[in-house]
This record gives sequence, structure tokens and C-alpha cells, in this order.
Amino acid sequence: MNVPVAKITPRNVVVSEISSFHIGGETVELSDQPRFVMRVAGEGMSREVDLNGSYVTGQLYANCVTLAEPRHEAPVMFWHGGAMTGVTWETTPDGRPGWQWLFLQAGYNVIVTDAVERGRASWSPYPQIYDTGPVFRTKEEAWSMYRVGARASYDDRIPYAGQRFPVAGFDALASQLVPRWTTHDEMTLAAYQAALEKVGPVHLVAHSQGGWFALNMVKRVPHLVRSVVVIEPAGAPRLTPEDVARIGDIPHLFMWGDFIDDVPSWKKYRTATDQYRQVLSDAGKQTTEMDLPRMGIRGNSHVPMMDDNSAEIAAMVVDWMAEAAKAST
Amino acid sequence: MNVPVAKITPRNVVVSEISSFHIGGETVELSDQPRFVMRVAGEGMSREVDLNGSYVTGQLYANCVTLAEPRHEAPVMFWHGGAMTGVTWETTPDGRPGWQWLFLQAGYNVIVTDAVERGRASWSPYPQIYDTGPVFRTKEEAWSMYRVGARASYDDRIPYAGQRFPVAGFDALASQLVPRWTTHDEMTLAAYQAALEKVGPVHLVAHSQGGWFALNMVKRVPHLVRSVVVIEPAGAPRLTPEDVARIGDIPHLFMWGDFIDDVPSWKKYRTATDQYRQVLSDAGKQTTEMDLPRMGIRGNSHVPMMDDNSAEIAAMVVDWMAEAAKAST
Repeated sequence: MNVPVAKITPRNVVVSEISSFHIGGETVELSDQPRFVMRVAGEGMSREVDLNGSYVTGQLYANCVTLAEPRHEAPVMFWHGGAMTGVTWETTPDGRPGWQWLFLQAGYNVIVTDAVERGRASWSPYPQIYDTGPVFRTKEEAWSMYRVGARASYDDRIPYAGQRFPVAGFDALASQLVPRWTTHDEMTLAAYQAALEKVGPVHLVAHSQGGWFALNMVKRVPHLVRSVVVIEPAGAPRLTPEDVARIGDIPHLFMWGDFIDDVPSWKKYRTATDQYRQVLSDAGKQTTEMDLPRMGIRGNSHVPMMDDNSAEIAAMVVDWMAEAAKAST
Repeated sequence: MNVPVAKITPRNVVVSEISSFHIGGETVELSDQPRFVMRVAGEGMSREVDLNGSYVTGQLYANCVTLAEPRHEAPVMFWHGGAMTGVTWETTPDGRPGWQWLFLQAGYNVIVTDAVERGRASWSPYPQIYDTGPVFRTKEEAWSMYRVGARASYDDRIPYAGQRFPVAGFDALASQLVPRWTTHDEMTLAAYQAALEKVGPVHLVAHSQGGWFALNMVKRVPHLVRSVVVIEPAGAPRLTPEDVARIGDIPHLFMWGDFIDDVPSWKKYRTATDQYRQVLSDAGKQTTEMDLPRMGIRGNSHVPMMDDNSAEIAAMVVDWMAEAAKAST
């Protein structure tokens, strides 16, 4: 393996502010809901609950860490995958630094988001406001969909040979999983767009379902995306010639881990993404693919930002981003 | 008004790590759930959904900002109120610095939590794992329960006279509201205890329902609490003589805003809390009350960490905490 080893220097970081905001969504009103009495908090404390009234729905959450002296003009904005939240970027299941911290050390202002109806973004009553109920990711599904190991091997916790995901920390990953709705693409894209309009242009780093959202967003608001990094996107849109023209020269990085051939869903997502990339290539655009196994880096799961080489992979992205920024000036 | 003006000096902060963790909870298993096919992400992407399997339930989320050179031994740990998340401490509805940032500037390592089933802590399927469904806070209820104004004045957005809550940002507060369950006190306390056992002893700063949890926790794990600040706790437990002995000399600060007599629930919560304080006083313990209106600081809502004098109030807490730490050494 003759892979150049990229590195982010561990260092303290001088921060000028940590803050957060919610953005997007709209107010909806419920009426004709029955009232009832419910215990709320404390011994013998109860009060009438009345669901009739107004709610904000469709908003997202963004956490911002601002450096006193950022070394790059545009911030990095992280979008997580399905059944996950911004926690994806904050830690690894075995407690090593997350990509949020590594990109801060690399000199970027960092914005971590929770998508609509996930985590701190909050969610709305169903079937009153959302039409349908959520789906939930089991540990067994996470084990196979995140390609830690074959589904049949879950009970014995036998991972794929050479697995880089910190398997002893699997339950820490399972603790992060959140419910999600499967029919909120447009609502989610609207909120992401509102966030980009507030903080963009950004370097967009998106994982899994977040990657699907990112590739749909790039063609909507290309002026707000300095570069886009999709880590194992869960599919990609079919690009029209107009899309290609709008996307222009936004640098794209596509990253893939190992064991993809073992999971049919991932083969399908990859095929769709490869088609997106091919359309850009056919139009004469340069894109970058980091197919980690083909680069000699074997054993990465679907969540390379959590794997044992997460810091090296972050550094590879940081280096690519610096080159991309140079190329686009 | 002859109130001493406390102040936290605005400054950059040198951070040695930002990270997070989930803790607490247990694994439960579902079986006999029907399988179905559902669209997941992307155009035409669908797959079988199988809810049978294992879930982590009862965990909480904690976000940790660690200073390169903290000026105090114990970190500050923030617990939010009902229908809220750790976002309470990260910002104000009009975008001023939140208490997380102010306490970092004051030299404390800061840990912000999302309670069980709130925000990034995640929540579990009901009725399969949780017995009952959640309740939701409407904007109208938030308006009156957080004492921005009388319920009848919501439609016209007329706040109480002298209101310090940034009323123009009310929808930003409404965007932060999350569903909650009303019957999870023990599960929540267990997760908070696990978190304290991981990071304690701490200076515990808790708001509203979080204050109720805090006053229940102090008597359980007094060795893990250096001091406790309850901002408008939603009630307090009845203390036994054994509780009082266990609590020992842990410094307590009770803070109350304005307009409490206008909202019966808050009068009731305050009475219960006053009884808790009285029991400690009767046993010869010193406690501190900051009844802001009685101190000449009028107009604070139920969420003083969001009001227009939030920075001054944070500084008052910081000053009290320093005195409390001195007194207990």
C-alpha cells in the first residue's frame, strides 16, 4: 500500500463563538383535538393538555463554531445521514475526536446540522401534521446497512474481516440512532436551502442520505456551494443538461468504503451515484472519486468518519478541499 | 434600582476539544412486528422495513466543550426544561450568545445535555417500547407557560408590560420546542445519574423541569454535585430528614423571574420549591434565592437565559458559583 498519509495537526483551537440556530419551516395550526389531563412533572403535578394551537414544523437545527482566525474563507457545513443526527460529526463510537473537531483544527469554521424531524430539529404530531408515522432503525439493520458485518453475523457480533469500524463501540453508534420519516424530501431540502442562504457559500460535507440531499441541493443553489463532498451518498438525482450547466465547475468528491458488493442497497445507491458522476464527466467536468479499497485503504464501513482511520480520511478530505479551493480561484 | 451589575468579559476562548457522548439506557427487543416496503431516499429507491429487532432506549446526549486552561476545577453541566433541549443554553431567540458560551468565557468547561427522548437523545417506538404517546407544546402554551404574556394576548402578541423576553424572536423559541413524554421520570433520572457518574462532580445548572430533576438528583448522588442552580424549577421533592443529611452542605441557588402570580402552575411549582428550601433552612443550611423582581430586576420571563438581560443574569450565577466554591473549600 503506497498511500500518502494525510494528517491534521492536533492543536488547541481559538474560538470566537459557539452558537446555534433553527431555520426554515412554517407555522401550522391544529384544531378540534380533544383536551385531557396529564401528569407533567413533579409529585402530583398535573394539568390540562390542549394540543389545539400552533406549531412550527419543517425547521432544521444548526450548530456553529466560529474561529477567531479561520484559515479558510468558506465554512464547512456537515449534513448527516438517515436515522442519524449531527452527532455523526462530533465523536466516534470509541470516543476519538469527531470530524467537527478535526475540521476546526484544520482551520475551518464548522456548522453541524440536524435535518428536519431529526434530533434537535424537532418533529411534529402525526397524523395531525405529518401524514404518516416514522420508521426506526434497529441495531440489526444498522449492523448490516452500515456494513459492519453481514446481518446473519449480528448476534455473534462477527464483523467483516479487516473491519475498521470500532466494533466494541457499536452500541454507542446504536444510541445515536433517531427515528425518521421517509416522505419529507421536499420539506428537508427547503430547510437546507434556507440554512445555505443564511450561511453560504460553504464547503458541503454530506453523508449517506445527506449526500442524496446534497447532490439535489447543488443544482438548486450552486452559488451557495463552494465544493461538495459526498461520503457514500444514498443515491443521486438524474441530471438534465440544464442541471449540468447550473452546477458549473463546483468541485465534487465522491467517497466509498469497503464491502459495498455485500449489500444490494449500497450497490444500487452506488450505481445511481456513478451515473451522476458520469454525466458530469461526459460534460467535460473534473470530479474526484476516493474509492478507498481501490486506493489500497481496505476495511472502511459506511461510516468512515467513525472508523479507526477517521482522522486520516478527514485529512484526505481537508487536502482535497484546499486543492479544490485553489482550482476554483 | 441599586443592583450590582455583574459581567462576564467577552473574549475568545481556547478550546482543547469539542466532543459528545450518549450514556445510559438499555437494549430492548421487538418481535412480531409486520414487515412492509417503504421508499427511503432517492428516486424510486425503496426497501423492506422490518421493525423487529433491538433498540437502545433510555439514553441521553451530552455535548462537551473542554478548555485548554479551565479556571475552575468542576465543569458546569446544563439540564434543560420540558419541551426543550440543550439548545436552551446555546443561543437566545434574537441571536445573542447563550449561557454555554458565556460560561466558557467565564472559564468553565461546559457540558450541555439533551434529556432522554428529547433532541439528540432520540426516542423509541410507541406503544411498542414506550407505553404512551408524547405531548406537544403549542406556541400558545409556550407563550403563557414561559410567561411571555397572558394566553389571551397571544394572537396579538402583546407581552406583559416590561417583558424582557425578546418577543420578536418568539418563533425562534417555538422552533426549538420538542415533544416529550410525561411518565419517564425514573428513566430520565437514571440516565442523568449515569452522566453524572461519568463527568461529575459538576456545578449543575438546571431549568424548569430540569430543575425538578436536579433537586431529585442532588439527594441521590450528592458527592457528584458541587453546587446546584435551579432556574424556575417545575416543583421540588419533599425532603425527608435522611435526604437533608445526605444533601449536606451542597450550595443551592434558586432563581425566579417575574409575572409568577399570573400563572397558577408557576405559583404551585414555586410553593413546592419554597417548601424544599424551607426544609433545608429549618435544618440550618444556607441557601440563596435570587427572586429577580424582589431584587429590583423586573420583567424576566420563565426563560431568563433568553431574556434581554441574560448575560447579566449569567454573570450573577457565575459570581454566586465562585462564592459557593470558596465556601465549600
